[in-house]
This record gives sequence, C-alpha cells and structure tokens, in this order.
Amino acid sequence: MNIEFKTIGFIRTNASTVPRHWTISDVRGEIIIDKEYMKGLKDIQKGQDIIVIFYFHISPEFAVSDLLQTPPHRNERLGVFSTCSPMRPNPIGMSVLRVVDREENILHVTGLDMIDGTPVIDIKPLTGLKKDTAL
Amino acid sequence: MNIEFKTIGFIRTNASTVPRHWTISDVRGEIIIDKEYMKGLKDIQKGQDIIVIFYFHISPEFAVSDLLQTPPHRNERLGVFSTCSPMRPNPIGMSVLRVVDREENILHVTGLDMIDGTPVIDIKPLTGLKKDTAL
Repeated sequence: MNIEFKTIGFIRTNASTVPRHWTISDVRGEIIIDKEYMKGLKDIQKGQDIIVIFYFHISPEFAVSDLLQTPPHRNERLGVFSTCSPMRPNPIGMSVLRVVDREENILHVTGLDMIDGTPVIDIKPLTGLKKDTAL
Repeated sequence: MNIEFKTIGFIRTNASTVPRHWTISDVRGEIIIDKEYMKGLKDIQKGQDIIVIFYFHISPEFAVSDLLQTPPHRNERLGVFSTCSPMRPNPIGMSVLRVVDREENILHVTGLDMIDGTPVIDIKPLTGLKKDTAL
C-alpha cells in the first residue's frame, strides 16, 4: 500500500552542518509553514517543545543492506528500527525542537538536526512524553 | 511537493474500540512487520518503549475547517498542530507502545490507540525522550 503525503512547510537555517541528533543540537532556524495551514499553529507557545515530522529528502534510496547499520557513535550493527538513521524503509524523521518564537506562519526554533530546505510533514505536541534530561 | 511512503506492516488487535491516546491505553495487540524488513527489528527488546509512526487510514479528508478543532477531552478550539487529532493535513500518527514480546516479524505490544488493520510506516527508538509519568 502506497501512501501520499504533502509538504506543509520546510526548514530554514543558516547552519551549513547540523548535529546527528536533536538531543545534542543548539542549532537555530525557522520552520516556515505554508500560509494555508497558519491557523493550525495558533496554540504553539514560546518555550514549548514540539515534535516535528519531516522527510529525509536527500537520503539515498533504502537498500536491503541498510536493515543493519552501525550508527556513527556506536560500535555495533543495529537493526534500522533501533536507530535514527535517515536510511530507513520510509525516509521519515522525527525531531523535538524548542520553539523560541512564533510570528504568523513562522516558528523560530532551536535544536535543529535537519538541514536547510528539509520538507516538513507534521507538527505534534509532546503529549505524554518529556525530554530525558539524564542524557 | 508530494512524498510517497509505503506500508511496512500493520496493527492487529482484537479490541473493537481503542482509547483516544496511547497514554491512557492498555490495549494489547501485535505489530506485524513485512518479512522483508524483519532483520531491522533485531535489537528491539522485550519491555522497551518504541515510537510507532502510522497512517490514519480511515480518517476523513482534511478540510480547512479542521485547522481549529475541539479535542474530545478539552473545552476549547485548538490549532490542529497542538492536537493529536487524526484529521490533520497529513493523516500521520505517532504512538509510544510497550513491547511485550518479539517473535520473528511480530512485535507483541501494549498501549494501542490505533485500530485493527492500521498501516505502520516506521518504528523508532525513544532516544532523548521518556514517558511523562506525572500524567
């Protein structure tokens, strides 16, 4: 079964490189949401953490050999569903970003681990979860 | 920009109804992953919490009037990106499920808030997050 999603916006950042994971990122940037969806942002508050679902748009196509991968900071081959690798059966990413400010259709955020131009698919509240500060 | 994803498996449960959110669910069931991706499950452990990304396959098509919604347990109209509603620009869901057991391509899980037959798109580790037990 194929499922079609559409971009609802994209990431904008001046950073030329980003960390491998949002947990270790203080990179700032913006989420530019298409104006047609702007109303849906109205309850997102300054200082709030949000879940951002996005598309790994420059990842190479997934191959069977990617089912096991050695993450950059690990010393073992892990099943892809236990990693955050962008090479996965569906190249879909999930990051938790801190909202620094909101103006109209733009969320100013910090914690970026996606590059400039990354297509955004969804934004969700962090309901039932919190950051693991023990990291 | 349109993005095409494919189903990597589906949810199976005997429950005829499920709670509105995984935080208040103890519904059991299975995630049946297509055998071609089975190897990618190898490091998922019994007792572990996993993030499951799925498709709200029976949601009505999104309309502009859905940009603001009153969630069932709330008394105010919220922007869709501050809700977990299945009616969203891209009908994509995210739940945190507890793995009770794993055998071959099947994960036995608890905490289901998706119905029998729900298409699964991705599984991720809960890196950097933990359940908010204050709820």
